[in-house]
This record gives sequence, structure tokens and C-alpha cells, in this order.
Amino acid sequence: MTAPDQDKEDSVSAKNIGLRGIVVADSTISNVDGEQGILIYRGYDIFPLADQGTYEEIVHLLLRDHLPDPSELNELKKELARWRSLPAAVITTLKTFPREARPMDVLQGMVSVLAMQDPELGDETREGSYRKALRLVARLPLVASAWDRIRNGKEPVEARPDLDHAANFLYTLHGKAPDPQEARIMDVILILHAEHGFNASTFTARQIASTRAHIYAATSGAVGSLSGELHGGANSQVYRMLQEIGSVDNVRAYVNKTLDSGGRIMGMGHAVYKVTDPRAKILGPMAAQLAQKRGHPEMYEIAEEVRRVTTEEMKKRKGREIHANVDFFSAVVNHLIGIPVDMFTPVFAIGRVAGWTAHFIEERFGEAQAKPTIYRPTAEYVGRYCGLDGCEWTPLDQR
Amino acid sequence: MTAPDQDKEDSVSAKNIGLRGIVVADSTISNVDGEQGILIYRGYDIFPLADQGTYEEIVHLLLRDHLPDPSELNELKKELARWRSLPAAVITTLKTFPREARPMDVLQGMVSVLAMQDPELGDETREGSYRKALRLVARLPLVASAWDRIRNGKEPVEARPDLDHAANFLYTLHGKAPDPQEARIMDVILILHAEHGFNASTFTARQIASTRAHIYAATSGAVGSLSGELHGGANSQVYRMLQEIGSVDNVRAYVNKTLDSGGRIMGMGHAVYKVTDPRAKILGPMAAQLAQKRGHPEMYEIAEEVRRVTTEEMKKRKGREIHANVDFFSAVVNHLIGIPVDMFTPVFAIGRVAGWTAHFIEERFGEAQAKPTIYRPTAEYVGRYCGLDGCEWTPLDQR
Repeated sequence: MTAPDQDKEDSVSAKNIGLRGIVVADSTISNVDGEQGILIYRGYDIFPLADQGTYEEIVHLLLRDHLPDPSELNELKKELARWRSLPAAVITTLKTFPREARPMDVLQGMVSVLAMQDPELGDETREGSYRKALRLVARLPLVASAWDRIRNGKEPVEARPDLDHAANFLYTLHGKAPDPQEARIMDVILILHAEHGFNASTFTARQIASTRAHIYAATSGAVGSLSGELHGGANSQVYRMLQEIGSVDNVRAYVNKTLDSGGRIMGMGHAVYKVTDPRAKILGPMAAQLAQKRGHPEMYEIAEEVRRVTTEEMKKRKGREIHANVDFFSAVVNHLIGIPVDMFTPVFAIGRVAGWTAHFIEERFGEAQAKPTIYRPTAEYVGRYCGLDGCEWTPLDQR
Repeated sequence: MTAPDQDKEDSVSAKNIGLRGIVVADSTISNVDGEQGILIYRGYDIFPLADQGTYEEIVHLLLRDHLPDPSELNELKKELARWRSLPAAVITTLKTFPREARPMDVLQGMVSVLAMQDPELGDETREGSYRKALRLVARLPLVASAWDRIRNGKEPVEARPDLDHAANFLYTLHGKAPDPQEARIMDVILILHAEHGFNASTFTARQIASTRAHIYAATSGAVGSLSGELHGGANSQVYRMLQEIGSVDNVRAYVNKTLDSGGRIMGMGHAVYKVTDPRAKILGPMAAQLAQKRGHPEMYEIAEEVRRVTTEEMKKRKGREIHANVDFFSAVVNHLIGIPVDMFTPVFAIGRVAGWTAHFIEERFGEAQAKPTIYRPTAEYVGRYCGLDGCEWTPLDQR
């Protein structure tokens, strides 16, 4: 043990801040190239995946490492449909929660409740984990939609076997089948949110997996991590900001006031992307089209102006290039298809669960993984120091 | 983006395995010196803390950075007593769970349920977080004890205002007040488990905190991380091993068979300690005394023989020094004071929640912290690679 003022060059002040750039594992799941703005799932660029794929195909790609052939896809859809319902006990649990409970707290807690209902919880094989991953993919949307209905005094709706994954989410949320455009938009939102390398929630999932905790424990932790406003919570913050701004005319004053006081514009800038987030490139035009079609262009126009002014101001003030990230336009799109604002982050979770579970499996069983061992970093102790024997204990009556 | 076979020297295969030795933050909370076997909480060595302190004093030390004077301690005890009950809705939720639910899943899920019941959930100040930390400290033991009673068809027991923290846990678990020796043993167990630097569950809590998720989201994730058998789950594995061995005569054969097949002896060896874990030095003699006093020396004797033979064999086979860690003797002690085996890890959680919440506060508000930013490491992509544009998308009917 050394006195805390020694070895300053080892301090985190100098390096490893937020672990940026620190390689913590090998992975075959995705690659995020922040310099060039490229996002790859299992070798495939996000653009054709979002343009031509379905969420079910992407789930197979992420969990099985290849695009499914028709019979594999059929098999996966059947398995998802089989688990696309909540046990009665789970609904009963949901009904014990206070109406004002936050959807992300509900989702985090209910992942543990789903664990209790999994007949194969103790099957810690790779295939067992794969089956549990599909159950989580199938059931997480139902927990979110059932909660939104229950808190509004409505009964949960059973999924329809003729609808696909994204459409079933909207159906069980709204109680009526979405039109094909809405269903496709939700499909694309889920695809775009499905996976993103070692982001905070995925790293949380892998870390929990590294202790050999089960896939539900890891997924629940990931939901908690995602709920933070610097991570998945950002999309609802974007919406609240756009609401607060209220009109295009107010944008410049709002951005300036926020930046003047050292605040940040939510949804702008990214830990990894130095150019435009490719997901924002897909969601931006989607938001624009949808806004026109719905005859409600205002929110999109405010968003676009916030993006433009923030980019301009950050360049002027700090000389920094700053770009919209996935949360920025997903807030607009989610709103336009009728998702309540505090359900935006649950929508993110419903998409990302494919990535979390793929990472769980890679962490536990992956051959690319050089380290089947627990994540256990260290900290530089900079606290009270009284020599090797520690500070002297003073009995209570002498303090 | 580079082809995955380039830059091999950057691969995790070569470095950063499990983040061992990587400094990820500054901290004033504790220092673990693995070379010398020293554990310090806020400057104080673990030996006087376990010998003369109470869990309540250690909670104050960890959360407030100094040993409490009599009035501060009184204040803290009053606050804990005030929150040492579960809202009726929380009991109702517990009763919806299947009896076979694992206590760690119950604990993880219920932390989110406690969030829903916290009137100050939205208070994201340092003081607000401190108050929520105390509520978690007060209520986590009650969730564990209530669940053990409910699954056994009994009603939860209300805490008694005249009993301290550790005694109340045993009282609400067993439905009768512990004798002073039992209460003191639980007190010491909680003190020894209260904090241990950047172990996996604490790192999970800090990581979740770094996204600005709330203290319950972080604590729930930490519970999930702790549940893994390589982390907090080890203590119940130790017990199951001792049960399986059954007698001192069987120890050598068991150890040899396990090591021959590449298995590990649970509770032996530690990621950080290269000498004996100081907590095991305290718990070992406690286990021996307690076993004698109770007239059940068998389990302790088996444990001691497993320790001796494993140390000897590992030295002979691998030339490695291996020592008992905190989980090894805590399994024996927990068993002797009547804790059911699947509640050993919840007991660990009930102690560690003080450390998790202290780290949450440091991560969010700490001045020692050089990095108020999200943990976002990177991975070496070693998966499918088809050049910068990604692999060609094949339509479903051509697969």
C-alpha cells in the first residue's frame, strides 16, 4: 500500500477516463467505427439491414451469427410467438405496482420476475441461454405494453399470432393493429436500436455475465444502465426539450441559454461517433416524411433547427464538430407513432435486448473471448491515509 | 475500420483481461492491498472495525466518510428505524412470486419495486441520494427475510424498534430475537461484507450510476452481478460442496478429483488477494468457536481440511499459493446461525449495499472523481468482415 499522493501518474485523472479507447474484450457481434460513421452487425452494414431486414431476421443474425434461411426464420418466429404472452402471475405482479411507477423501473424489476417464470432458468448451457434470450426478446415488449395499459386502467391485450414482432408491440400497446407504415417504422426503430458494441448497458450485461449470473440478472442490470439520461434516457429528454422550446422561433435562444450555462443539448454528440451517427441518418428522413404525412411538421422542424443551431454554435464556441445521435430523431419518430414519452426508453430496451443477450452468450460461451473471467478493475485510492496499520479507532464515547 | 486480423497487438488477448490492474477511477472509499492482505474502509483497517464497530457505525463511515459521534449515530439509527418496514404493496408484490423463486432474483427485482415506493425518487441531489441509500440499507434485509417467510407459508414479521440492524435481520427472518452472540456474529458478517473496492458488483453499480440512472437502478444491477457464482454466489457453493463431501475422510479424494478434472474449489483463491483474505482471518476463528459452542464441529472441520488440502495441492500442482477468501468461512458461519443456504448470498448483499450506495454517491457526486462521464470501453472486432461497405445483403428467398 502506498500513500495516496504517490504514483500520481497512475491516477485515473491522467488516463482511462470512462474507459474510452480501452479494449476490454474481443467481439464478433458488431463494429462501431466512430471516425467514419459506420455501424456493422455481424459483418452487415446497418443501412441494408434497416432498409431490407426485419427485426426477427436481425435477432437471428445477432444471436446465431448468420442471416436466417426461410426455415430458420420460420422456426424463430414460431418460438417467439410461443413465448409472446405473459403468465397470469406476471400480470398480477404488475397490478401491485403504483400507477406512477416509472416504466424503466417496471421493466428492470419485471425482468427478474420473468426469471422466476422461466422453466429453464437453471439450464446454463449455450443453447439454454439462446432459448432464454428469445423469451426475453418475446416478452420484454409485452411487459412494457401491459404496464402502459394497466397504469391507464386498461386490461393488457393478448398478442395476435398473425402479427410480427414490431406490429405486436404496437398492437398490445394501443389495443388496435397498427397500419403497415407504423408497423414498419417500429420494425426499423427496433433494428436500429438492436446492437451497438460495448455501450454502457451492454457492458453492464457482459460484466454481470462475467460473474456467471444468469441471463435475466444481466438483462435486468442492462435495463437499469439504459435508464440513465446519458444513455437510453436521452430520447425522452430530447422530447421534453422539444416540447419546452415549443416553436422554431425559440430555438436559438434556448440553445444559447443552455450552452451559456454549461448545459448540454440532449441527443447531440456521441461518445463514439465523430461524424453523423448512421442511425440518425436513417431516422432523420423518416421523421421528416412521417411528420409531413401526419400533418404535424412542427416537432420535426423544431428538432431540425435545434440540430442546425447546436452544430453551428458548438463549432463557433468550442471548435467542435457535433452531430445528432440516434436518440435525437427517434424521439420525434416515437412521438409521431403514438408512443408515450416515458415509453421511449423502454422502446430502446425492447430493441436492444437482442444485443444484450447476444453479448451475454458471447461473454459466457464465446470462442472469440480470450477471458472467461470476472471483470474486476481497480481504483486509485486517494482517501484518508494513516499508514499501513490504518487510522486509530476512537471509541464512540470519545468522538 | 481495419480488417479484424490486423492490429493484433491491440487485442484483449494480450492485455486488459478482466480489466485486472486497470485503474478506472479515483476513490476515497476503500483500499484493498492484495499483496499484503490489508483491507481499509475510509482509512480504517478492517480488524478494529470488525472487532469494535457496529454495522451502523460502518454505514456512517462509508456513506459520510467519518466515524459518527454519538448524536450522528443516534440520528442514523433513527432514520434506519424509520424506514425499517415494507409498504403493504411491497408485501403484496412478494406474494405474487412463485415459491421456488430464487432469493437473489427476488432481491434484484424488489430493489426496483422499492424505487417505485420511494417518495424522493426524483431527488437526484447528493443528500437525496444519501437518504435513499439509508432506505436501501434499512429495507433490503426486510425484503430478504420477508421472502424467506412468505415462501415458507409464514407472514412477514415487523422489525422491533429496540433491536439494532443485524439483530433485526435475524429477528425478521426467524421470528424470534437472536441471542446476543448470534446478533453480534451477524453484525460482524455485515461489516466484513460492507465494502471491497471495485469488485464486480460495485463496478456494476458505478457503471450504472455513470449513465445517471438512479440509485435503485444501480443497486438492482449490483445485486444481479453479486448473484453470479464467481462473485457473491460462491458462499452458497462452498456450503453445497461441504455438504457433498460429508466427512473429513472424503476431503482429499474430493479435492483431487475436482482439481484433476480442471474444476475449482469454491471459496479458495481471490482475484486480488495474493495472501490470506483478512476477512477470512476474522471469520475462520469465528467459525471454529461457533462450531465448538454449538456442538456441531463437523462442517468446520471439513472446511478447514478442504482449505489445508487445497492449499497443499495447488502448491504441489501449480506452484501457486492459494488461500481461503471471505466466502469460505462465511458459508460455515451463516449455516451455524441458521441462515438457509440460498440466503447466504442475500446476506452478502445486505452487507454490501452500504458499499454499493457509497460508490454510487462517489461516482455521481464525488470530488475525487476525475470523470463525471459514462463508462464506455471498446472491443476488438474479430468477426465477419467484408470490407468497408459490409457484407452483401441476400434477400430471404435466396438464402
